[in-house]
Amino acid sequence: MKSVQDRWPHRDPLDDTPRLECGVFGVYGVPEASAITALGLHALQHRGQEACGIASFDGQGFHTERHMGHVGDAFAGSDLVERLPGHVAIGHTRYSTAGGSFIRNVQPMFADLESGGLAIAHNGNLTNFLTLRQQLVAEGAIFQSTSDSEVILHLIARSRRIRMVEKFIDALSRIEGGYALVAMSNKKLIGVRDPLGIRPLVLGDLDGQAVLASETCALDMIGAKFVRDIEHGEMVIIDQDGIESLRPFPAARARPCIFEYVYFARPDSVVNGRSVYEVRKRMGRRLAQESHVDVDVVVPVPDSGVPAALGYAQETGVPFEMGIIRNHYVGRTFIQPTQGARELGVRMKLSPNRSVLAGKRVMLIDDSIVRGTNSVRVVRMVREAGAAEVHLRSASPPIKWPDFYGIDMPDRDKLLAANHSVEEIAKILDVDSMGYLSVEGLYWSMNSAPRDPAEPQFTDHYFTGDYPTRLLDREIAEGRNDSADRQLSFLVDA
Amino acid sequence: MKSVQDRWPHRDPLDDTPRLECGVFGVYGVPEASAITALGLHALQHRGQEACGIASFDGQGFHTERHMGHVGDAFAGSDLVERLPGHVAIGHTRYSTAGGSFIRNVQPMFADLESGGLAIAHNGNLTNFLTLRQQLVAEGAIFQSTSDSEVILHLIARSRRIRMVEKFIDALSRIEGGYALVAMSNKKLIGVRDPLGIRPLVLGDLDGQAVLASETCALDMIGAKFVRDIEHGEMVIIDQDGIESLRPFPAARARPCIFEYVYFARPDSVVNGRSVYEVRKRMGRRLAQESHVDVDVVVPVPDSGVPAALGYAQETGVPFEMGIIRNHYVGRTFIQPTQGARELGVRMKLSPNRSVLAGKRVMLIDDSIVRGTNSVRVVRMVREAGAAEVHLRSASPPIKWPDFYGIDMPDRDKLLAANHSVEEIAKILDVDSMGYLSVEGLYWSMNSAPRDPAEPQFTDHYFTGDYPTRLLDREIAEGRNDSADRQLSFLVDA
Amino acid sequence: MKSVQDRWPHRDPLDDTPRLECGVFGVYGVPEASAITALGLHALQHRGQEACGIASFDGQGFHTERHMGHVGDAFAGSDLVERLPGHVAIGHTRYSTAGGSFIRNVQPMFADLESGGLAIAHNGNLTNFLTLRQQLVAEGAIFQSTSDSEVILHLIARSRRIRMVEKFIDALSRIEGGYALVAMSNKKLIGVRDPLGIRPLVLGDLDGQAVLASETCALDMIGAKFVRDIEHGEMVIIDQDGIESLRPFPAARARPCIFEYVYFARPDSVVNGRSVYEVRKRMGRRLAQESHVDVDVVVPVPDSGVPAALGYAQETGVPFEMGIIRNHYVGRTFIQPTQGARELGVRMKLSPNRSVLAGKRVMLIDDSIVRGTNSVRVVRMVREAGAAEVHLRSASPPIKWPDFYGIDMPDRDKLLAANHSVEEIAKILDVDSMGYLSVEGLYWSMNSAPRDPAEPQFTDHYFTGDYPTRLLDREIAEGRNDSADRQLSFLVDA
Amino acid sequence: MKSVQDRWPHRDPLDDTPRLECGVFGVYGVPEASAITALGLHALQHRGQEACGIASFDGQGFHTERHMGHVGDAFAGSDLVERLPGHVAIGHTRYSTAGGSFIRNVQPMFADLESGGLAIAHNGNLTNFLTLRQQLVAEGAIFQSTSDSEVILHLIARSRRIRMVEKFIDALSRIEGGYALVAMSNKKLIGVRDPLGIRPLVLGDLDGQAVLASETCALDMIGAKFVRDIEHGEMVIIDQDGIESLRPFPAARARPCIFEYVYFARPDSVVNGRSVYEVRKRMGRRLAQESHVDVDVVVPVPDSGVPAALGYAQETGVPFEMGIIRNHYVGRTFIQPTQGARELGVRMKLSPNRSVLAGKRVMLIDDSIVRGTNSVRVVRMVREAGAAEVHLRSASPPIKWPDFYGIDMPDRDKLLAANHSVEEIAKILDVDSMGYLSVEGLYWSMNSAPRDPAEPQFTDHYFTGDYPTRLLDREIAEGRNDSADRQLSFLVDA
Repeated sequence: MKSVQDRWPHRDPLDDTPRLECGVFGVYGVPEASAITALGLHALQHRGQEACGIASFDGQGFHTERHMGHVGDAFAGSDLVERLPGHVAIGHTRYSTAGGSFIRNVQPMFADLESGGLAIAHNGNLTNFLTLRQQLVAEGAIFQSTSDSEVILHLIARSRRIRMVEKFIDALSRIEGGYALVAMSNKKLIGVRDPLGIRPLVLGDLDGQAVLASETCALDMIGAKFVRDIEHGEMVIIDQDGIESLRPFPAARARPCIFEYVYFARPDSVVNGRSVYEVRKRMGRRLAQESHVDVDVVVPVPDSGVPAALGYAQETGVPFEMGIIRNHYVGRTFIQPTQGARELGVRMKLSPNRSVLAGKRVMLIDDSIVRGTNSVRVVRMVREAGAAEVHLRSASPPIKWPDFYGIDMPDRDKLLAANHSVEEIAKILDVDSMGYLSVEGLYWSMNSAPRDPAEPQFTDHYFTGDYPTRLLDREIAEGRNDSADRQLSFLVDA
Repeated sequence: MKSVQDRWPHRDPLDDTPRLECGVFGVYGVPEASAITALGLHALQHRGQEACGIASFDGQGFHTERHMGHVGDAFAGSDLVERLPGHVAIGHTRYSTAGGSFIRNVQPMFADLESGGLAIAHNGNLTNFLTLRQQLVAEGAIFQSTSDSEVILHLIARSRRIRMVEKFIDALSRIEGGYALVAMSNKKLIGVRDPLGIRPLVLGDLDGQAVLASETCALDMIGAKFVRDIEHGEMVIIDQDGIESLRPFPAARARPCIFEYVYFARPDSVVNGRSVYEVRKRMGRRLAQESHVDVDVVVPVPDSGVPAALGYAQETGVPFEMGIIRNHYVGRTFIQPTQGARELGVRMKLSPNRSVLAGKRVMLIDDSIVRGTNSVRVVRMVREAGAAEVHLRSASPPIKWPDFYGIDMPDRDKLLAANHSVEEIAKILDVDSMGYLSVEGLYWSMNSAPRDPAEPQFTDHYFTGDYPTRLLDREIAEGRNDSADRQLSFLVDA
Repeated sequence: MKSVQDRWPHRDPLDDTPRLECGVFGVYGVPEASAITALGLHALQHRGQEACGIASFDGQGFHTERHMGHVGDAFAGSDLVERLPGHVAIGHTRYSTAGGSFIRNVQPMFADLESGGLAIAHNGNLTNFLTLRQQLVAEGAIFQSTSDSEVILHLIARSRRIRMVEKFIDALSRIEGGYALVAMSNKKLIGVRDPLGIRPLVLGDLDGQAVLASETCALDMIGAKFVRDIEHGEMVIIDQDGIESLRPFPAARARPCIFEYVYFARPDSVVNGRSVYEVRKRMGRRLAQESHVDVDVVVPVPDSGVPAALGYAQETGVPFEMGIIRNHYVGRTFIQPTQGARELGVRMKLSPNRSVLAGKRVMLIDDSIVRGTNSVRVVRMVREAGAAEVHLRSASPPIKWPDFYGIDMPDRDKLLAANHSVEEIAKILDVDSMGYLSVEGLYWSMNSAPRDPAEPQFTDHYFTGDYPTRLLDREIAEGRNDSADRQLSFLVDA
Repeated sequence: MKSVQDRWPHRDPLDDTPRLECGVFGVYGVPEASAITALGLHALQHRGQEACGIASFDGQGFHTERHMGHVGDAFAGSDLVERLPGHVAIGHTRYSTAGGSFIRNVQPMFADLESGGLAIAHNGNLTNFLTLRQQLVAEGAIFQSTSDSEVILHLIARSRRIRMVEKFIDALSRIEGGYALVAMSNKKLIGVRDPLGIRPLVLGDLDGQAVLASETCALDMIGAKFVRDIEHGEMVIIDQDGIESLRPFPAARARPCIFEYVYFARPDSVVNGRSVYEVRKRMGRRLAQESHVDVDVVVPVPDSGVPAALGYAQETGVPFEMGIIRNHYVGRTFIQPTQGARELGVRMKLSPNRSVLAGKRVMLIDDSIVRGTNSVRVVRMVREAGAAEVHLRSASPPIKWPDFYGIDMPDRDKLLAANHSVEEIAKILDVDSMGYLSVEGLYWSMNSAPRDPAEPQFTDHYFTGDYPTRLLDREIAEGRNDSADRQLSFLVDA
């Protein structure tokens, strides 16, 4: 199991946020498709801030650029359309290590297949990645990355089917996990959502042309209209004749990831028909119903805790205040003077607003708590600013199980709630009271029927341990992949 | 007058925020002074995001680095203390053009005077800069920049006084305007605030050692205690014997810049004894008292409008909602596809949260309105998201007069409120109602006595036209300086 | 046929030198193998100046760096051994376009095969590259480059044999052309020279450990002793047990490339047992015997014409003078002022030494003449410097046929001697007399028996049209590969 | 005295060549003056390879770019004329440290004086630099560099004269040393050669417009005609009315630097009316007359030893052979593997050509010997290549005295010939015989009358100790300047 987790790069141990691998975007039939894609990716920047890429097709050839860093740095500039010409484009934004070597893992991935070029980008994770990669290497495939997308490309390249779409479906039949894919051939734009719809993908309309994006906020950015969610297990094939919808997988009930609502999606996005902002406010409201205590102010841990804190404040009538100020200019690798500035990590991102906190009983609202390292420091900062009491509420249930569908979380032994009771957690975090939203409360916040244990409506294993698919790679020996990763990581092109 | 304004670089015409020239920081007597300074500058990043510099002294020599870009990019990294060793350091963060040529204007400025090295950095603006520069050039001075700091350095270098401090005071006696200075010789750290205290400067205590900073948030960042404001017209000289306070200027009544509270200072800072956050909330409260109409939601224009919107909502009981989401990843020079995406500029920074806005009567709260270009686009975005009514309130009075003390604002003919009545403005901005805070309300929000027209308590000419000092450069012919600027701007070192 | 030529990047049309694709180097069993390799590549820089790469193996994993630019820029620096640790390394230097996109074509190429990692680098050209690449793509192989090395890697990866060496031999059995290969697995260093020994490869001894290099000058650089040439059709396998020599190809008579002596190899190298410098001097001597006329000075076109000019001068007793000075600081893409500086291209590299040329009858000696564009300009420069007569001699026979074994030459219709008689050439170049070495003279200069038309001793088709192997790709339709090239060329990783 | 020497940056101790500080170039009245200047500087690259700069004037303003690195890297590119527009330009190429901080020392230097802008560049050295700098700092001047040019700029800026030319002459009256200056105001191009004409400067004609350059090779490069040398102590003022010649200094006899002929100037240049190539050949011829022994081959230490070796060979009839091959691709900071590669430094630049050296009695000809470190290694390399005997001749007399006029040489205690007899030197260098050209021979080689000890015809103190001017700075205490240098060296702009 470790080898799966190890595919994510190591990061600042003080950084305690869960992370998504990726946002995807695609557009067909518009002039300056790469500029539209850059804007869409900019709106999806929160889904992956460390690398990004765009591939375009101009009727003659494919053009691809992949960069470390933000979309606004990589794809701003007036010559973008010259660099990436064409009327079709797909794009990707992802997390990755800072090292230049990992540029090979940045998407879109491109291959020059016998039937023509194909570019592909995905959000999510294949749970049988290692299994497939080993098989492919044994068959003579040469990998340039450790990316899921490259596995899919090899499966397509080796398919015995004739037409590109058939090869694609052939490949899809072999992969498992949670994913949203966008792909582009010299004729078509393709979008696929995994059989359970774990990862999101929406269809938009830009002046009559089709757009695919991980979230609706990308449609808003480019001025496109939201048409509908791509359905779970649906494959859409977009070309000059319009949009064709296929169902290449066995029928299954949808089970979208509930963590998109808790943390990942932007509050102004509508995911699977629900406003993320409204769901988060309901989480705060329900939290107040479940575990309110008497306080003077409700203070969000910014920014993701804001909607839940507003819901909490509105439900209780306690004033909502910005008691913690977020610094917009975060330098991740800032030097830390040796003289004991242990609290520096949190201070660089968050500052206490003393006038709101001093002498007050403070109810802190956070969206979720993973390892608790960040919470410890926020609580201490609030106490040092003079708070009389500090209470903490998590707008999601206790996180007890790791993810294998594209969310970067620590191993189970690092998950605070997997190893401690709520009372212990209150002591560890040094709060006067601690509370989590219940799983029932979470489903209520979703405006959903109560959770059906036999067939849950959402992917929610982080809270329940109930994984929506089998996890094939967990049973595989790990040495092989480790070395593959390590070797690739030492390739530097400059 | 144009030549004065022209000293600021041109910027995105869609960017309608006022801008400060600069934050300053200094620390004396600590190991790793440059690392402390980098952190302090990071907390002052909002006062100038386009360039930054640090100078340190290690007992033997001076070390200076100046960079375009953010503090976190320029001064992160584990070798900072090796690059900039020493126990004394000053730092600066500023606005500047993107062009590499302006690196020469980046501070701190350093000169190797006969009495030894001197580094200097300032926030603010000299109103007799052109006059002094012309005199100095006529006397044979060679300028390397168009920075006020260099004028001060030349005045010090040419003073006939013997001791460095006396030379410094000699130079101060010749400059006019609003400024906060930090300087560092091989023996001392010096801080100066202009005679009226227009620009802010505070004194902190870091484990018994003195710290100077533009705002208290920089003290919080490094874990220093706030001691007091440097007073208007005060010069503090810090060395191993402690802190000496001098009064080199004729006595005058303080008149600090009120715009620090309206927009510039961070909400968690305490400026001249007042919490910026609390002042802003009172602005919102007073605004509600002065011009409330019946609405469904109160929505701030993020982020600077948030405290006033909270005050407004608390005063009226109307729900506060995050109806506009700020994108944290702003690419300033993003390409704009030609196909009519006129609203793109605002969308890249702000997104409508449809679930909050659709069908609602919306009260938008902004901190201030300069040219109105941003407001037009925000209002249109809110309308397109389905708002039933859109009302707009400015938490400051109408801005009618330009600034000459370090704030970058357009000429008077571009200031919306200088050329239009409130009714006209409502039409221009396409709002159902428009309101500004009154000047009386602004003073009330400051917890101040009513404005004394004979001797106003604050620098407030943006609203009143009542400038606190004479403006010598306005009377000077402009050609000379223009050419100086142009020539320097074409010097590229690479 | 065009598609084969098109694999080489376009370059300055004024640049009229033939170009080699590449130098290779490998070393086994030494500490700091990458530093040794960097030095070896530095000595081979003349074989490819536009990109370079090194792969090392440290007992655990492989480390690869590939860079655009010179070896001295890419692999200088004290951290090289940390970046590329290990006791085995191979390296490569090559020509390539300046565009960053071609970094994917830079060698060594690495693949993580089922049997472990394999890095490979080659000098030369496969004459069935397109044929093999098409077959491999049809079988599902995904290519990342347009390099011959990647074809070989895929052939190895797909071989059904068990052991790495067997797979390697299996792959060799399918490739055709002229090449020298070095490869490195986690156990072995491998060197291969094509069945005819067209491209050179030598074995050296560095303190008892094996070294492979394209030329002996690389052995001199690292202080290694020359052991012997790798023989035509020989494969050497070097590991901790020593050196094993295999003969994987059908027996054939050696036929090394004679152009190595004419132009490519460094004069201090010994190639196939012959001193390059001595061969070139003999070319000059024979040239004098074949076509001397009465002149005052013998002037080489520097630097490659120097040895032949010395031989010519010694044979005739006419003084040898440096009548043309080579500028060591060549800026290839220098701007050319519009005002008529047509001769600028040559002047930037070569300057006339007037004191030697004015009023003299000048015998210019060049190593070879390809298109003649450079010769026209050199002759004009010498005339403008006041020469009374200008005679030109080429130290090689007329070049009439293009190459397909790793030399970058223009198409036949651009080869001066393929389209014009010697008399016509004299007029085109505006010389008082023109002469070429005869093919007989060339063989004499090699100290060889006269050319055996049935089984020529050297690869000499540039002069004779007698190609040493079949040229499979010439019969293939070209569209497919063109598009592959174009697509890859637009991939930018940054 | 040390402080004077210390103004030159430290460099590779294995690098034993003397170095010139700088080449200068200027052109008036041509379109695309900066492109012409870039070409001229390219031809002067040998006079300074580490930094370069160009300033242009377009009728409105001045444009300056200064770069570390070669001219071909800094000023190639098709946008040069847009970056540096105008019909007048001056340029400079110089040695400097690799550190970015020294960009401030790169020329041209520019100042915005009261009378308008002035850019200046110089080759040479002021012998009263420290004296003047101290005086200027005491008067309040602020220095940005440690360059002589900035001293001159300050002197001009402070002159009480009215017209620019008068100010310039006023400044010239205060400086001492050897120099060639080019300067550019908004009206004029100015050239000055020091009173003794120590450093060279020539006047050329480009289609009727004036050109100034350190050497005639720069005129050849741009296709300009050589007009005449600027005379010693002459100031030429070029504007639209033509060329005016002034004599601002007291009359003196010319005494140009003889080292230009020995080493610095390009062989194809004509300096003070003498062909450098011919002078060098005469040095070799005379050397043969003075100290020939029986040998088999004459081998130059390339490239600067080539003409003298040709003269030697022609005089003696012994064959001239390229027994040492120079590598054109020199990586200066190349890593040196720890395993004993002590000879690596020389091998990276020079390789033995064994076929010429093995078994032969070799006469090595070098242009000059400074510390001897390079000679030791060359001799050892030739011996290791199998030479039977190795004899060494220096084409210049023993170097015994340091320079203060712009040549970078080590202190006297490092000069080999200052501390050892010829016999000792033969032992140190391990040669079978050693010989130096005599001073008489040197003057003979110049086609000059015998040296007049009362009033020598050339600046030749390196050989004679007879300095042409007083050396004021040698008497000054050194601490002050050291600190100035150090402080400036730690300023980094990025």
